[in-house]
Amino acid sequence: MAEMKYSKLFGKTRHGVLRSGELVSHQLLTKAGYIRESTAGRYFFLPLGWRVHEKIKRVIKEEMDRAGAQEMVAPVLHPFELWQETNRDNTTGFELMQVTDRSGRQFALGGTAEEMFVDVVRRFQISHKDLPFNIYQFSTKFRDELRARGGLLRVREFVMKDAYSFDRDEAAFKIEYEKMKQTYMTIFKRLGLETKAVEADNGYIGGEYCHELVVEHPLGESHYVESEDGAVCQHVDVAKFKKEAKNLNDDLLPYKQVEAVRGKTMEEGVKLHGLPLWQQLKDVLYKDKRGKLFLAIIRGDLSVGEAKLLHVAKADYLEPAEDEDVSRIGSYPGFISPVGLEDKVTIVADTSLRTVKNMYGGANKQNLDALNMNIDRDFKPHFEGDIAQASDGFQTEDGTQTLKVKRGIEVGNIFQLGYHYTQKMKDAVFVDKDGTLKPYYMGCYGIGLGRTMATIVEKFHDDKGINWPTVVAPYQAHLITIGNNEQETMSHSEQVYRQLTQAGIEVLWDDREESPGKKFADADWIGLPVRLVVSAKTLRQGSGQAGEKVEWKERTKDAAEVIDLAEVIKRLKTI
Amino acid sequence: MAEMKYSKLFGKTRHGVLRSGELVSHQLLTKAGYIRESTAGRYFFLPLGWRVHEKIKRVIKEEMDRAGAQEMVAPVLHPFELWQETNRDNTTGFELMQVTDRSGRQFALGGTAEEMFVDVVRRFQISHKDLPFNIYQFSTKFRDELRARGGLLRVREFVMKDAYSFDRDEAAFKIEYEKMKQTYMTIFKRLGLETKAVEADNGYIGGEYCHELVVEHPLGESHYVESEDGAVCQHVDVAKFKKEAKNLNDDLLPYKQVEAVRGKTMEEGVKLHGLPLWQQLKDVLYKDKRGKLFLAIIRGDLSVGEAKLLHVAKADYLEPAEDEDVSRIGSYPGFISPVGLEDKVTIVADTSLRTVKNMYGGANKQNLDALNMNIDRDFKPHFEGDIAQASDGFQTEDGTQTLKVKRGIEVGNIFQLGYHYTQKMKDAVFVDKDGTLKPYYMGCYGIGLGRTMATIVEKFHDDKGINWPTVVAPYQAHLITIGNNEQETMSHSEQVYRQLTQAGIEVLWDDREESPGKKFADADWIGLPVRLVVSAKTLRQGSGQAGEKVEWKERTKDAAEVIDLAEVIKRLKTI
Repeated sequence: MAEMKYSKLFGKTRHGVLRSGELVSHQLLTKAGYIRESTAGRYFFLPLGWRVHEKIKRVIKEEMDRAGAQEMVAPVLHPFELWQETNRDNTTGFELMQVTDRSGRQFALGGTAEEMFVDVVRRFQISHKDLPFNIYQFSTKFRDELRARGGLLRVREFVMKDAYSFDRDEAAFKIEYEKMKQTYMTIFKRLGLETKAVEADNGYIGGEYCHELVVEHPLGESHYVESEDGAVCQHVDVAKFKKEAKNLNDDLLPYKQVEAVRGKTMEEGVKLHGLPLWQQLKDVLYKDKRGKLFLAIIRGDLSVGEAKLLHVAKADYLEPAEDEDVSRIGSYPGFISPVGLEDKVTIVADTSLRTVKNMYGGANKQNLDALNMNIDRDFKPHFEGDIAQASDGFQTEDGTQTLKVKRGIEVGNIFQLGYHYTQKMKDAVFVDKDGTLKPYYMGCYGIGLGRTMATIVEKFHDDKGINWPTVVAPYQAHLITIGNNEQETMSHSEQVYRQLTQAGIEVLWDDREESPGKKFADADWIGLPVRLVVSAKTLRQGSGQAGEKVEWKERTKDAAEVIDLAEVIKRLKTI
Repeated sequence: MAEMKYSKLFGKTRHGVLRSGELVSHQLLTKAGYIRESTAGRYFFLPLGWRVHEKIKRVIKEEMDRAGAQEMVAPVLHPFELWQETNRDNTTGFELMQVTDRSGRQFALGGTAEEMFVDVVRRFQISHKDLPFNIYQFSTKFRDELRARGGLLRVREFVMKDAYSFDRDEAAFKIEYEKMKQTYMTIFKRLGLETKAVEADNGYIGGEYCHELVVEHPLGESHYVESEDGAVCQHVDVAKFKKEAKNLNDDLLPYKQVEAVRGKTMEEGVKLHGLPLWQQLKDVLYKDKRGKLFLAIIRGDLSVGEAKLLHVAKADYLEPAEDEDVSRIGSYPGFISPVGLEDKVTIVADTSLRTVKNMYGGANKQNLDALNMNIDRDFKPHFEGDIAQASDGFQTEDGTQTLKVKRGIEVGNIFQLGYHYTQKMKDAVFVDKDGTLKPYYMGCYGIGLGRTMATIVEKFHDDKGINWPTVVAPYQAHLITIGNNEQETMSHSEQVYRQLTQAGIEVLWDDREESPGKKFADADWIGLPVRLVVSAKTLRQGSGQAGEKVEWKERTKDAAEVIDLAEVIKRLKTI
């Protein structure tokens, strides 16, 4: 319905002071009557909030359809065997909920639906002539998060628009991927959000590359680096940067061991040997789920980035090892060295070890250090690659610009999946021109609707409340009657309400017997774009023809003016 | 999007013969590319099918909003403790699925959401001035059915529109209940379905009365009786009928026991004693979940209706007892009698025992019968009421009309809940005028969208395929190009496609290189209201101005005609 009387609206405002340190979106959406928490991380969307959610959905749907994608829907309960087929049934870090039916059949409450969409596609005989297609749904997703705080920004249950594209090959896919990136930018722009496409890690979704669509925000959970000109925009997990050459002109000195009575920190090594931090060899021991050990080694002034490490080590999951693990391989905490450990651990070296010579560090015994350690000569890594985490102030790879670390809220993401699913899942093939069966080249594309809603509030609010962009405002106009006990103001209000509704304007009418102050405060709190007032004052200004004047005030402006109702309608149709 | 090229549509037709005995809706929806089963009772809605589903949703939403209801949404996972609060956590017959999160918290995958809506309402301080309100959602519901067959008619997962009304008292509720009944009738009428409001049993939902909205259908699972004039329409579970007086003018004869060498059936008793079936006392032993026994007794020519029995016996659940249970109370299978069992079982008598005297039947020993048993004199029931099941040919209560048993598909239902939930759940109260806290008087109202969709297909199809009512057709027009290899027909088709789209017509364009026969058969199978053809023939009839003529054929008619495109658009805008 385009109109609503506030007296009958379920979910009215609660006022209160906004607490700093807590997300404003959560406080405002709750207190203005948009949402209410059920259990931690699971929310009721009240009638006002659901209207916003539906408007966001409409924008997403319009743009997805415009890009040629087709809406459909998959069951909420996914047959668990599909997750087993892709080995995602036990991927840690992914909070998959499970449920068993009365006949003992297992299901997953999916957080994404790659398997389901591949499963439905492989039920059809599809020819290259049917390709490409991109199918999507709006559906409830579940994440069994350990912590769910921050209102709609980190939840355990939410509506996601998830899309899955099926292409003939990589070249065709790249067109779709770029189209989706542009579509996402357009969607968020229409919703009032400026986003950046940040290169990120694919994580448990799989595939080789992906982008997060991020709205810059100081409390966001996405940490990314951006170059001064904005051309480089990468999640810190994957960000590449220049590792400048250090002492590469030095001669290789002979490896030797020296007594080193020191503690376990890097600083103590620097102090003891009087050598620069960058010349120190940093060793970090990890283990996988079966207890297999991985020794990550890197230049002393850099840090290991775990997402990069997983890729270089070709591992699904790694966690820091314990002191017992260090002892088990005959080494000592704070004194680990790759020298001599090749047979006991998988050594993963960062490329930064190629920028420095004659490194120093532990020698696998307590109070024993090694000097002049050099890659290839003294130890040979099993894997070598970029495993260094980017930091604020680092240089771009080409050394021309400085990287700045920023924070933002990830409102959407797009993933190249390639053959990741279609090679693991049986029969995920189409008939190509030459009659051969080929696996699809896939991508997937997600937007969290509730998170987008909260992000809009983060961006559009002030001390007095929310200030919705018109496109997602639950109603366009907030009509307030002052003087409910007067027959004339009420009947005039009723008339204004009807005429607005008939003109197709979405209007919320505060028809309650409340003080003007309470009504004005509620209107600001709720945050519709335009506030309209009918009162004895506007009636007087109707100059003989009662009913024609209404006070107009925009949420973002201070000035109010009394104008003709016809003008009100005209303006509301164009905002 | 209002337009779609069939070549790119995901989910194309599969042809085949319709098998009799199986639901046509399931076969057609699957074979025409609307739905595809995931696991038993859980369905993918493919792009075509989802468009129909969304159109059904739109009609429901429009009418619910028009009736003043407010859409919102509750989490899919319900805190299990809410179901414990109302004792619905272990109500058998209700297939509640459960899931536990990683922190050990239990949730229900709800089949309905009464508790959730009461729970959100009680979080607000609500005054009588905020009442009444009716809040509803479209959300996925789960039923852990033992059997799920028949396509969308009996599923384990489906989208339901469920509404919950909160009123000040019974009088206010009755207005809402009647409004919802009318709203439902209007919704189904707009969807092309003629429904009957059938009085039914509230079952596990609770409350005192309810109506099923039923579409008559020979394979429907709802069995109801209807009087000749249609004024009486009741589910057989609750149907009332006339129990005519039998031998009430007879004198009471003395109770006596006689040897009775017979089997266990009623017929054998009739044969042995040479007395009418109606004079025989029928005894059926039930037990509840804790093993407590209930003896239902009824006139021999009637049957016990278990739904009625539960009400009269004030029980949640009863199942037929075993032979061991009969022995345990010192009786014998086939020879049970209420006489002398008052202390061992709860006796529940049907009112039909007041229509007959001097009944005969078992005497709690093998091969021993009793004659001249009379209620009050020989046995005293603990409960007495109507526990008789209606059958075809019975009379209405007033004896003026004959009842006919019919079958139908329940597409919606409306329930009076009264205080059933608000008295069980703490703090489900509002502040009344006098400042006192009072529980809400509730109702709830459900529509299954998938089931409605299947029912529409059951009603609207022929041997060639589906024939959608315009309001729910996924597209209005099915444009077919004959002669895809000819430049002229293709460019003309493209032009027609564009002009239709620009005119706001929803059009599906079969642009494939397929035979005309295949395309025509697919069009009938898919079932859009109007088929349009562009071919060499229509081009010729364009009389010099190629592009202005199109063949028009309605799905339900045999005749095709070639008409101006402008006329096509005009007609399509008014169908």
